[in-house]
Amino acid sequence: MEQSLFYAPDIQPDAAAYTMNEDTSKYCIQVLRHEKGDSVLLADGRGHRFTAVITDDNRKRCSVSIRQREQMPAPSPALRIAISFTKNASRIEWFLEKATEIGIQTIIPLVSQRTEKEKIKAERLQNILVAAMLQSKQFYLPDLQEPQPFEKVVNSNDPQKLIAHCLPEQKRELHQHMQPGKDTLILIGPEGDFTPEEIQQALAKGFEPVTLGNTRLRTETAGLVAVTLMNAKQREL
Amino acid sequence: MEQSLFYAPDIQPDAAAYTMNEDTSKYCIQVLRHEKGDSVLLADGRGHRFTAVITDDNRKRCSVSIRQREQMPAPSPALRIAISFTKNASRIEWFLEKATEIGIQTIIPLVSQRTEKEKIKAERLQNILVAAMLQSKQFYLPDLQEPQPFEKVVNSNDPQKLIAHCLPEQKRELHQHMQPGKDTLILIGPEGDFTPEEIQQALAKGFEPVTLGNTRLRTETAGLVAVTLMNAKQREL
Repeated sequence: MEQSLFYAPDIQPDAAAYTMNEDTSKYCIQVLRHEKGDSVLLADGRGHRFTAVITDDNRKRCSVSIRQREQMPAPSPALRIAISFTKNASRIEWFLEKATEIGIQTIIPLVSQRTEKEKIKAERLQNILVAAMLQSKQFYLPDLQEPQPFEKVVNSNDPQKLIAHCLPEQKRELHQHMQPGKDTLILIGPEGDFTPEEIQQALAKGFEPVTLGNTRLRTETAGLVAVTLMNAKQREL
Repeated sequence: MEQSLFYAPDIQPDAAAYTMNEDTSKYCIQVLRHEKGDSVLLADGRGHRFTAVITDDNRKRCSVSIRQREQMPAPSPALRIAISFTKNASRIEWFLEKATEIGIQTIIPLVSQRTEKEKIKAERLQNILVAAMLQSKQFYLPDLQEPQPFEKVVNSNDPQKLIAHCLPEQKRELHQHMQPGKDTLILIGPEGDFTPEEIQQALAKGFEPVTLGNTRLRTETAGLVAVTLMNAKQREL
């Protein structure tokens, strides 16, 4: 039986003890039935892995004593995706869960001309990221940023910049074109794609056009395929 | 405005005319507001692409006259995935939708020792495959087979056979190990993984162990990553 992993967003790196918030305490004590003396793991979402022992199995304020702290290696190079959020919230929430499981460092809600969703429910989405991080046994929480306009994102200076669009122009397969070992940003457009002007703007800024395959993918599927291929590409090193 | 694509499962390859079923007729006439004289596309799910013109815009029995038939190239080599269905139906339904969008030819519900879901709602799942095929503008419907026991699947003689498991044994990255150009079958286990006995059985039958990454993936996520990487690998040819 492997150890349970809980989220401790506000734990200090040098903490000797920690008290879980009410939700986490309830999950730990009531749902998972942990008791005083049980050994558990804590993640602060910033790469620290804490081994702890339950000292008070209070279902509202579960306290633990920290026995060990480990700094996990940061995912490198960094993968960033700027993706136009879908009108249908469940589709993008599904994307956030899966992208976190597979491994992504930064997610930027991209507001392009044809984007239909410009606001996000930050707290709700944050909870989805946390659950996926814990579920996939990771210790770094992806950075979900505030929505940003296309004009701002297109000016970012990531070492490797890619754009996946649907115009029948010269494009190369993402997994064949991308160079591993470089911090990378990819842009994924809305249903209805980027406008030709946006695509030209991106190319002028040094973004390289890539294709994700031969079928027409929904936005959230395109995002997932991009994260999967970029992540696999980085592991080739 | 691109042409609407509708499913015509029972159309004859040499048909001169066709009448849509009630659901499709309603969708075509009431929802999409198509009228007599409009040109539409039909897919039979077996690779035929029909160009047709609406001759009777009846919202219950929409009839069309076939103007052209095209045989689309079959996806080759074939990708087959045998995956243990999840207890939570929505997770595997999501997998079926996405795997179809990205491109998969055969899906086998795999019943292994730790599989918690042995029955499937064939009709409901079939509808999900059809919707995803049309949405992604494809003309071949994936073959969703009846659930099969591990013992039967492990005896299949696909040219390339892979198994993704979580035991810390020697494994290579799927996208680096897989050879493009070969019909391929991959096995994806249940939450809780295959049993060591099942893994040994598969290896003895010539299945090669592969890893899908460094994080711990849910069953449906592992399936999606596998389909994405296999599909990309085949396009390297």
